[in-house]
Amino acid sequence: MSIQARAKEAKSASINLAALDSSVKNKALEAIAVMLEERKNEIIEANQEDYARSVKENLEGPLLKRLKFEDEKIAGVVDGIRSLIKLDDPVGQTKLATQLDEGLDLYRISCPIGVVGIIFESRPDALVQISTLCLKSGNSVLLKGGSEAAKTNRILADIISKASIEAGLPEGWIQLIETRADVNEMFKLSEDIDLLIPRGSNAFVKYIMDNSNIPVLGHADGVCHIYIHHDANKELVEPIVVDAKTQYVAACNTVETLLINEQAAPLYLPLIKEALELKNVELVGCEKTKAIIDIELATDADWQTEYVDYKLSIKVVSSLEEAITHINTYGSGHTDAILTESETDAKTFMTLVDAANVFWNCSTRFSDGFRYGFGAEVGISTSKIHARGPVGLDGLMIYKYKMIGNGQTVNDFATNKLSYKHTPLNKNCPL
Amino acid sequence: MSIQARAKEAKSASINLAALDSSVKNKALEAIAVMLEERKNEIIEANQEDYARSVKENLEGPLLKRLKFEDEKIAGVVDGIRSLIKLDDPVGQTKLATQLDEGLDLYRISCPIGVVGIIFESRPDALVQISTLCLKSGNSVLLKGGSEAAKTNRILADIISKASIEAGLPEGWIQLIETRADVNEMFKLSEDIDLLIPRGSNAFVKYIMDNSNIPVLGHADGVCHIYIHHDANKELVEPIVVDAKTQYVAACNTVETLLINEQAAPLYLPLIKEALELKNVELVGCEKTKAIIDIELATDADWQTEYVDYKLSIKVVSSLEEAITHINTYGSGHTDAILTESETDAKTFMTLVDAANVFWNCSTRFSDGFRYGFGAEVGISTSKIHARGPVGLDGLMIYKYKMIGNGQTVNDFATNKLSYKHTPLNKNCPL
Repeated sequence: MSIQARAKEAKSASINLAALDSSVKNKALEAIAVMLEERKNEIIEANQEDYARSVKENLEGPLLKRLKFEDEKIAGVVDGIRSLIKLDDPVGQTKLATQLDEGLDLYRISCPIGVVGIIFESRPDALVQISTLCLKSGNSVLLKGGSEAAKTNRILADIISKASIEAGLPEGWIQLIETRADVNEMFKLSEDIDLLIPRGSNAFVKYIMDNSNIPVLGHADGVCHIYIHHDANKELVEPIVVDAKTQYVAACNTVETLLINEQAAPLYLPLIKEALELKNVELVGCEKTKAIIDIELATDADWQTEYVDYKLSIKVVSSLEEAITHINTYGSGHTDAILTESETDAKTFMTLVDAANVFWNCSTRFSDGFRYGFGAEVGISTSKIHARGPVGLDGLMIYKYKMIGNGQTVNDFATNKLSYKHTPLNKNCPL
Repeated sequence: MSIQARAKEAKSASINLAALDSSVKNKALEAIAVMLEERKNEIIEANQEDYARSVKENLEGPLLKRLKFEDEKIAGVVDGIRSLIKLDDPVGQTKLATQLDEGLDLYRISCPIGVVGIIFESRPDALVQISTLCLKSGNSVLLKGGSEAAKTNRILADIISKASIEAGLPEGWIQLIETRADVNEMFKLSEDIDLLIPRGSNAFVKYIMDNSNIPVLGHADGVCHIYIHHDANKELVEPIVVDAKTQYVAACNTVETLLINEQAAPLYLPLIKEALELKNVELVGCEKTKAIIDIELATDADWQTEYVDYKLSIKVVSSLEEAITHINTYGSGHTDAILTESETDAKTFMTLVDAANVFWNCSTRFSDGFRYGFGAEVGISTSKIHARGPVGLDGLMIYKYKMIGNGQTVNDFATNKLSYKHTPLNKNCPL
């Protein structure tokens, strides 16, 4: 079937999917969990083939590690599905209720977006998480995973599709896209695909924006900052900086630039250098930093680089304002933290830094859907419309307005026979 | 100043605008209202020049009418500003509060999007409404109005800028764009402009989507439907159809296609023909319609045309399902209504019709920000992300996550020294 035909099928399925009872969706989720366990050996076998092929093709170590999908990870996604079942159905919630006039009631009701196209990296667990989030939120999904995981993804998509359709979901709600050519075709289908969620590099997100009219929920670079204010609590500085830089260097919420107030720099820079060098972190810094600790000079490029590696740039600033301006100039709007004892200065920082996540006295590594309590996530958004930060079920929803009348015409209001009351209603939409 | 420099200035202003107290914003709104009244004669004089020039340039009648901006309309926008002052500040509201663990609290806080670019038609009142909505919601705005209203717009922008900056708003938060070349430049500035809101034809919206990476809050065609079910209440049919078609034909929420159940067709079609022909509405219909009333045959193009005129297409359908499928195939996702006495069938219609506004037993003309009680509106969105339907203050907001800790590291949770509690917090963010 052509990609156009498959997107049309997904669109058509999305209409019925949007109207499904929570009980049917939860039954389908449970059926998926059960079938994942039943067909576990088949999954592991396919994954071992993917792995062996990828080793031959010299896939890099971290990617190989993420490709692995065996007992523990399968148990993990099954647990994830069972947590998802317990969450409230995000569809059909009354978000606003207003009586326009006697017998004329307006409701804003949450509903699924429709058809979502998601392009993700090699991790097969992402396929399960994303498609079950779409199911729970009533969205059809077109999925394109990494080619390294082709066989694993094929079995996982087959399981999710079969188990859910047997449980009452509409045929075609989930579609696996396998070729790069099909992905490029997908970008053109703005009639049938409502939202694209690319999980990949900033360059990839930009490529999609340049090549598609479909709205994109983008995840740009994670150039995250920690600013150490002059009054930072000495106990907190070292553990937070070490955690934010080294707990998992490949993550987007890892700190890449440390800003430090000139009053605090002489005290902290030597301690930070010692602690980070123990973890093999390479340091580069501005002239003022170099005057205190012996490290390489940073260039302007360093301030805008997401190293995703054991490397950190350091800049000495003379004020809170300079720190905020630096972050708003070079940051990527992902996650930025301040270490200070002053609530007033923390408030200024958190208000003026234009980022999805702004933290006071904790590690940047916390910005993540699971840690935020959203269950699984489809990704982290640095967009400034629709959804920002870690995106769970909420980011897959939109709303429609439902109005219930008994014969009202606008003309009666325009000619002042009737007048708008706009009284808030304290009830859910009856239909 | 170049358009790039002006967008940068607006971006820089947006950071401080986002942090302004409600009282400063309301004081600025009041100052604008006062200055609009004070400089009324100047506005009217400029508007008369615009009008005279447009008459010479043979501007069409309806556009000329919308261009007029004199005493009554000025009083109208001043009233609008005073209602806006009374609305709650949409900035800084706590939308979610979760305790991740003892002393580690997460908040989702509403904040402005940043810089909005709005391209609107000739009505000068739109300039005032849009820029005051942006002010109240804390957004910088780049405005491009119709060239017919150039002189009027220049004075209005000057008043809004002067009055608000005197009252404490940051310099450069509002920028008037005057040339088409500048608008095309604006589409490239994705670094400094966060959202584009074009108010114009579907073709214009598509042009922008093709020529910009900036997210677009689109208003596509308004191909709106009314479906008359077999059990529709006889009292309601004629008044609602007449209102939806003729109350103001140039509006996007005017009905363009009437769908009628085959059981109800023989009774209602003659009545509707008589009533609409009295209002000079031209009717076209399917073969089944033509078998009942003597009108021209509709072509496939009719089902997807927004006439914005005294013209209506009519189709006889054999079931509720056929009506829903027709709407989801040919509609534009704007506003669709069902006339029925059955709550069950109304529910089916309102759930399965994929439109921003779905109505039961009332006129499609109600879908409008003012009628919904949102005060002024920046437009009506048929997008399926961010904001849908009439867009008021809410659609100009996004959120950021603020987290407050006391030294937490992710590693302590990863190594099970600590564990996530994810307890809902019943309080507002303290900063």
